[in-house]
Amino acid sequence: MLFYSIMKRIVTLTTDFGIEDHYVGVMKGVILSINSEVNVVDITHNVDSHSIVPAAFIIKNSYKYFPKNTIHVVVIDPGVGSDRKAILVCFNNHFFIGPDNGVFSLIFQSTSNCEVYQLENEKYFLENISSTFHGRDIFSPAAAYLSKEVAPNDFGKKLTNPHTIELNEYTLEDTEIRGEVIYTDKFGNLVTNIPSNIVNKDSEITIGDKKIQGVSNYYSQVKAGKLLAIAGSSGYLEISINQGNAGDMFDKSKLNIIVRL
Amino acid sequence: MLFYSIMKRIVTLTTDFGIEDHYVGVMKGVILSINSEVNVVDITHNVDSHSIVPAAFIIKNSYKYFPKNTIHVVVIDPGVGSDRKAILVCFNNHFFIGPDNGVFSLIFQSTSNCEVYQLENEKYFLENISSTFHGRDIFSPAAAYLSKEVAPNDFGKKLTNPHTIELNEYTLEDTEIRGEVIYTDKFGNLVTNIPSNIVNKDSEITIGDKKIQGVSNYYSQVKAGKLLAIAGSSGYLEISINQGNAGDMFDKSKLNIIVRL
Amino acid sequence: MLFYSIMKRIVTLTTDFGIEDHYVGVMKGVILSINSEVNVVDITHNVDSHSIVPAAFIIKNSYKYFPKNTIHVVVIDPGVGSDRKAILVCFNNHFFIGPDNGVFSLIFQSTSNCEVYQLENEKYFLENISSTFHGRDIFSPAAAYLSKEVAPNDFGKKLTNPHTIELNEYTLEDTEIRGEVIYTDKFGNLVTNIPSNIVNKDSEITIGDKKIQGVSNYYSQVKAGKLLAIAGSSGYLEISINQGNAGDMFDKSKLNIIVRL
Repeated sequence: MLFYSIMKRIVTLTTDFGIEDHYVGVMKGVILSINSEVNVVDITHNVDSHSIVPAAFIIKNSYKYFPKNTIHVVVIDPGVGSDRKAILVCFNNHFFIGPDNGVFSLIFQSTSNCEVYQLENEKYFLENISSTFHGRDIFSPAAAYLSKEVAPNDFGKKLTNPHTIELNEYTLEDTEIRGEVIYTDKFGNLVTNIPSNIVNKDSEITIGDKKIQGVSNYYSQVKAGKLLAIAGSSGYLEISINQGNAGDMFDKSKLNIIVRL
Repeated sequence: MLFYSIMKRIVTLTTDFGIEDHYVGVMKGVILSINSEVNVVDITHNVDSHSIVPAAFIIKNSYKYFPKNTIHVVVIDPGVGSDRKAILVCFNNHFFIGPDNGVFSLIFQSTSNCEVYQLENEKYFLENISSTFHGRDIFSPAAAYLSKEVAPNDFGKKLTNPHTIELNEYTLEDTEIRGEVIYTDKFGNLVTNIPSNIVNKDSEITIGDKKIQGVSNYYSQVKAGKLLAIAGSSGYLEISINQGNAGDMFDKSKLNIIVRL
Repeated sequence: MLFYSIMKRIVTLTTDFGIEDHYVGVMKGVILSINSEVNVVDITHNVDSHSIVPAAFIIKNSYKYFPKNTIHVVVIDPGVGSDRKAILVCFNNHFFIGPDNGVFSLIFQSTSNCEVYQLENEKYFLENISSTFHGRDIFSPAAAYLSKEVAPNDFGKKLTNPHTIELNEYTLEDTEIRGEVIYTDKFGNLVTNIPSNIVNKDSEITIGDKKIQGVSNYYSQVKAGKLLAIAGSSGYLEISINQGNAGDMFDKSKLNIIVRL
């Protein structure tokens, strides 16, 4: 029993539900009703509504900082109630639960070891399934039962072809890397798809119609309000403004990054 | 002792305090200072400032997803510091703590079994009571002491006439149901006061100056951007836009819903 | 072991990271990976970006409501990655961790008992240190190791001159107190730097070009929409509008308060 307490499982939540309503609280209630010994941790509930790509980025850059056996619930689910599948992804003792709509694409991309199971066994659903809130009715109960050591293949059969979405990759030609912005954070930091370890410290970087000379070591190396490039905390080149918001400076819909090595 | 750990009580928080300030954190500090073995769970802190009706809706639609013995603290409290009472509501082993201003009206409406006690015993208050933050000084300590098995009638005497607010109910005449919007969520889903189980699948629904033919089974049954009616997750008919925001489409202050059966 | 469980340490988080991204979730993952028996509590993540003064106000007005031995992590860190130091502040069994940029100024001001240590020992850092996210790489691990009883002086050497920022104090001359607004909360309550216990109940208060006669006992003592002065929950005189937003009424950049006693 004591052992059990110390092995307390973590369930993380990543959704686009926002924090204005009771939806996230209700998910926690459902989880704790099934297993009161779970530690529920919010990653974020403010993913842009129905936006699968940023959620894919967020969960890929979050899961590795949690202990093994953590269960990550991701509910960005524009197809809720339709025949899109619900899945459990197991990978090297990390667990992911959510809709089969591509939100785990970057997990699949990073390994060939994923096992994917459908969530089909109604024994592990809430009794009444709504057609609008599977976060409450299917995904939260699945996480809670998994935390109680229900075996993955008890939830349903294996799925060999989970849905994936194509994300553009950077290109490298001669002395030029071409990439794009894949994520913009709250500070307006523009995260590119270019790994920072392939960029030279003194490269010239072009973003939209602006040029940046070299990669800074830290934000305050340039004056407040000035644009800079920096090796971001996710391992990618980022474009920022020291104490300002680079995201507000550009039209992000068509923003190319060119690094001249 | 171990038993105690496994019986860890949940305290939920629903407020209009927002998340910009330290108010919610301080409430958690007060609770954990009195009983470190409580699991504090946020429902939401973004109820519109001083808005009792949406808070009443939120707590009514949340509490049943939490285990019995959960203590729900609701602080929407425009009358803080005045002579409005502070109360503890007990109902079938669910517990509610907050101001006596109608925020528990929908709990009272749903049962005749509520026992209501005033929070009067200063032994269970913080030492210095401010006139602006009873969430910290009275409601949080009450929740923490209740979680330590202080008996409800130790907090104060019974209250037989707690404050309630009148909420409009739908009307049913011949083949027409008339209702209104009682809650709008972050996605712009308009929750009506019409139970979805009294609406036919092929009813014509009029909302403001728009007409909707039939009730959808799931959002993506209609095209992105299209208006639809759906059985919502709280048991009421909801009006939504697939991957859009129905709340932005209407003036919600005077929005009638008519269902032609 | 059981004892240990009951002594579960609290780590609080105060940042300007916002709640849109995974940054806060990742900090919690790092902490729980090092010590799964920590109770992580959010104070706020919505301090204005790079704003040290409101963060100093928030942590000073929060820490005392948490049990002793709580560890408060404060990451408002515009100088991240530069040579600004990282510190641990110990004061009467309260612990504070963050950048040495003045964010703990109000803690230092309130006591002469603070011991300050630099966070230098890389044994207690994550393996790879980014130059943009010390909240994840240095401050969270420090909090987690401290919660596991690593001794303060194991993290690094003592620092005798931590960075402090000067905050204006009120002045008292004859029968006039002059102060200013030091914090504005979500409700638009304007918190001044004037202790409410030196203000008479019937003082005339001037704020900007408005005059208020006397200090109210509670918000709803004046009509909805009316300006009032009140003894706030932090011990300071506050200017508010009953059920309204006083912050929206004034240009806060240069707002003087005069109390005529």
